Amino acid sequence: MPMLSDPSAKYRPFPQVNLPDRQWPTRTITSPPRWLSTDLRDGNQSIIDPMDKVKKTRFFDLLVEVGVKEIEVGFPAAGQTEFDFISWLVQSGKVPEDVVVQVLTQSREDLIARSFESLEGAHSAIVHLYNAVSPAWRDIVFRMSREEVKQIAVRGAQQLVEEAAKRPGTKWHFQYSPETFSTAELDFSLEVCEAVMSVVGPTKDWPIILNLPATVEAATPNIYADQIEYFCRNLPNREAAVISLHTHNDRGTGVAAAELGMMAGADRVEGCLFGNGERTGNCCLVTVALNMYTQGVDPGLDFSDIDKVIETVEYCNELPVHQRHPYGGELVFTAFSGSHQDAIKKGFEANEQQNDEQWRVPYLPIDPADLGRDYEAVIRVNSQSGKGGFAWVLQQTQGLKLPKKLQADFSKHVQYMADDTGRELNAADIWECFKQTYYLKVEKRKFRLVDYEEARAADGDRVFSGTIEVDGEAQRVSGRGKGLISSVLSTIGKTYGLEFEVCDYSEHAMGTGVDARAAAYIEWALPDGRSGWGVGIDEDVATASVRAILSAANGAAHGPGTPRF
Amino acid sequence: MPMLSDPSAKYRPFPQVNLPDRQWPTRTITSPPRWLSTDLRDGNQSIIDPMDKVKKTRFFDLLVEVGVKEIEVGFPAAGQTEFDFISWLVQSGKVPEDVVVQVLTQSREDLIARSFESLEGAHSAIVHLYNAVSPAWRDIVFRMSREEVKQIAVRGAQQLVEEAAKRPGTKWHFQYSPETFSTAELDFSLEVCEAVMSVVGPTKDWPIILNLPATVEAATPNIYADQIEYFCRNLPNREAAVISLHTHNDRGTGVAAAELGMMAGADRVEGCLFGNGERTGNCCLVTVALNMYTQGVDPGLDFSDIDKVIETVEYCNELPVHQRHPYGGELVFTAFSGSHQDAIKKGFEANEQQNDEQWRVPYLPIDPADLGRDYEAVIRVNSQSGKGGFAWVLQQTQGLKLPKKLQADFSKHVQYMADDTGRELNAADIWECFKQTYYLKVEKRKFRLVDYEEARAADGDRVFSGTIEVDGEAQRVSGRGKGLISSVLSTIGKTYGLEFEVCDYSEHAMGTGVDARAAAYIEWALPDGRSGWGVGIDEDVATASVRAILSAANGAAHGPGTPRF
Repeated sequence: MPMLSDPSAKYRPFPQVNLPDRQWPTRTITSPPRWLSTDLRDGNQSIIDPMDKVKKTRFFDLLVEVGVKEIEVGFPAAGQTEFDFISWLVQSGKVPEDVVVQVLTQSREDLIARSFESLEGAHSAIVHLYNAVSPAWRDIVFRMSREEVKQIAVRGAQQLVEEAAKRPGTKWHFQYSPETFSTAELDFSLEVCEAVMSVVGPTKDWPIILNLPATVEAATPNIYADQIEYFCRNLPNREAAVISLHTHNDRGTGVAAAELGMMAGADRVEGCLFGNGERTGNCCLVTVALNMYTQGVDPGLDFSDIDKVIETVEYCNELPVHQRHPYGGELVFTAFSGSHQDAIKKGFEANEQQNDEQWRVPYLPIDPADLGRDYEAVIRVNSQSGKGGFAWVLQQTQGLKLPKKLQADFSKHVQYMADDTGRELNAADIWECFKQTYYLKVEKRKFRLVDYEEARAADGDRVFSGTIEVDGEAQRVSGRGKGLISSVLSTIGKTYGLEFEVCDYSEHAMGTGVDARAAAYIEWALPDGRSGWGVGIDEDVATASVRAILSAANGAAHGPGTPRF
Repeated sequence: MPMLSDPSAKYRPFPQVNLPDRQWPTRTITSPPRWLSTDLRDGNQSIIDPMDKVKKTRFFDLLVEVGVKEIEVGFPAAGQTEFDFISWLVQSGKVPEDVVVQVLTQSREDLIARSFESLEGAHSAIVHLYNAVSPAWRDIVFRMSREEVKQIAVRGAQQLVEEAAKRPGTKWHFQYSPETFSTAELDFSLEVCEAVMSVVGPTKDWPIILNLPATVEAATPNIYADQIEYFCRNLPNREAAVISLHTHNDRGTGVAAAELGMMAGADRVEGCLFGNGERTGNCCLVTVALNMYTQGVDPGLDFSDIDKVIETVEYCNELPVHQRHPYGGELVFTAFSGSHQDAIKKGFEANEQQNDEQWRVPYLPIDPADLGRDYEAVIRVNSQSGKGGFAWVLQQTQGLKLPKKLQADFSKHVQYMADDTGRELNAADIWECFKQTYYLKVEKRKFRLVDYEEARAADGDRVFSGTIEVDGEAQRVSGRGKGLISSVLSTIGKTYGLEFEVCDYSEHAMGTGVDARAAAYIEWALPDGRSGWGVGIDEDVATASVRAILSAANGAAHGPGTPRF
């Protein structure tokens, strides 16, 4: 069932840019751009309930803390509330010396005047002038010629210069956006920007910011990069301009457009934390910055406590950060799949052993710890998970390092539990399953060690004598062998008729230090072919082994059958 | 406060591909790829609670309905539940003749055998074999040489051929993924794929699918495109292979990578609806398809009832589609900003008047109606909105087409209400505000028309005589003038001393047909300089005018003051 109507009559392909010698595809991003956050402007104007003063202040403080140095704080002429907040903010002393606020204004005399008024008392400020230049806007919205549209920009620029001259106490910077740049003719955008520059007279030391918005994302991101490269290469007096990107995400490629745009020569990126903004949002500054970070380039923004950033952003915007949002989403460092979990587990182990710091963990493009996230959240177990996952969970939460064959044995039980419950298993579920499977829980076991002592016989044999509860009834038992394990095995063999063999044995400390407990693992096999594993945990290494044999005895006595969950 | 640690020691820049004569930046997407949905595999394995049979079936049915022809339905060897579902599905008759199911298997003998078993009875199927080939996996996860890794793929391919030969009742297709392709050496991926092809012996008519995953997105999307173009150009017997893309979204550029990859020569795209999948998710098929649609290219997938698609996807995955997700999110066709609303309103008007079908509405890259969405949701009003928004809302919900100056008058009241309530205003709020502002509500007005009649005097004047309630008390009044309006004005002037002038007047039908009501708008001015608007609505065009004058009288009588909300 294809779309009812053929889209070709209604929609047209976006035209290519004629730039056969484009350079951007051969470039990489080697240094961070200037960042501008427009969370308090583009972000705020597009949320269901715009922020009140408390929220705006909290967001502003967060941006300063993260390290953003250019912050668009609003549209002063949009209303009294907006004006009052900006006016209060710049006079509050909350704007650090190295942070500059920016306000947006359409190119209209009253709005520009009002914008300057709102900034009374600011140590520095960027006044951001815009008017739409693309044919759709010229024809449909304004019904104006190119020349008329250009004159709107020129008159606005003249007023910027005049208003600034009246207020020498503030260090003024100007930004001009040929709004709807990405859907406008490149030569016309250049013409308007040149006209604005000739009014403002920017220099290398006092450049104008030319912000080139993909107001609505309307093409693949390579086209935007072509547009940016074309613009940069054809702008006279390029060094007197800071080329700024402002992408939206209508086609889901706003981050890509910003990245390719940087490669194409831009100096500055506008966006919002976690991609808030009109419609599909602006380019996400967190993603662009951390993408850079994973390439070894310091973005100059600090997201080392990403959960705090998320908490504030969600509180202020009243919109969630999606579970799969790059770097920030709840599930983005989570592996449910067994093979993924196994690879991650091996990656962490390899990382600990290598000599350099380089991050090489499969499936994790960034160390979650760099964002203040725990490793523990990385691996989660559901019915799609294999043995890598629960082994990791048991290692992280209980300090158990299960032998590989024991993992295989236990995996059947976990799988059964996951299939049976039909939901994600948490660490407590897995631990509970483990304790039941290997008879670490009192109520499940036939044999339970009460206490024991050990002596050495004259012939060098070890003599085990202890008290074992069998189905709740205590019995004194004893036996001898060449070592502790064989003495316990012989005790069990002769007392209960369970003549099992130990095929494998290992033991390790759970954690570090003198108080660390020990875990012992024993693989057993009966003459009838049945086999399994026993597990013992105790503060004493010898007792852990004895417990492991009793665990094995419980398994052997239980007989064959389906997993116990 | 920059990041505590310089990332350059821990992370390295992704290497460039040496492809100076790359062609993809000059290409555009002119036809749809083959689509594969992996919602039931990559998607299902990465959600907190994997789907049960009911959910899997519902998702499968949705995919068929949308028009997906290749559907990866699971990983048969992952567990009994998974196996049973696949086995049931292919035997259920639910798989249409033109839809082929795909199953994933690692290259291990038992898993491959199990995969074929699960497909018993399928009319056709793709068996998708994979093993990881990149250095990190070879060194950290498998500790194997290149040759050993290649032999895993070769042995798997041999088994595919053998197992298929045993089951001639099914039309078999093979897919091979050099897993972790994007972080592997291109020459090695090519070498392994060639080795697999030489075992399988694909032809132009029976091609092998070579799927090239960005298992973890680790570079800007142009690099992935370079990798794909390099691969396509260097693969011998290219026409016997379908090149397939499988991108993830770790850097937020999974859609871009898929698009540039198509331009680079790929034939097929794997992904999930709304970008579910491991960690940050797979490339979103909805976005890639509708991106194509907005360029006039029929994607062959039907999202004309996108809300139904969202409902099913959210139900099955138990994950939300984010408010800002391209095309699907609740807010993506919403404009709160006044200037955006105004432009959209003009765009809709222009669209109705133009001769061709071409879509040219500012800020809306696609007609929401093409996705089954109403226009009404497009414009929403908050304190950041200007007059465009509420005017649109009143037009859409009440059929009122307010004159521009009336919009300006009313905007003060809306703004005041929005600032005052601090929340989004819905259509009912705006209508309530309008009725109060222009005295359309009984309890607010001083003057109310009870009834009237009209006669023509001997001199041609019109004579108005009617009953008007003044503060609840009915009075008989009359007056005369050259027309209806002047006769009512003179009545009010002489009776109540309200000598206002009518500066502007307009009237229109609300809706179409004989039963349509009429709305009349009157701009009034008093000698003391005060001015305002009156509005009248009635089933009769003449009565609407009389009501508008009474509304104006109420405004004039009310006196100056702040907005009434």
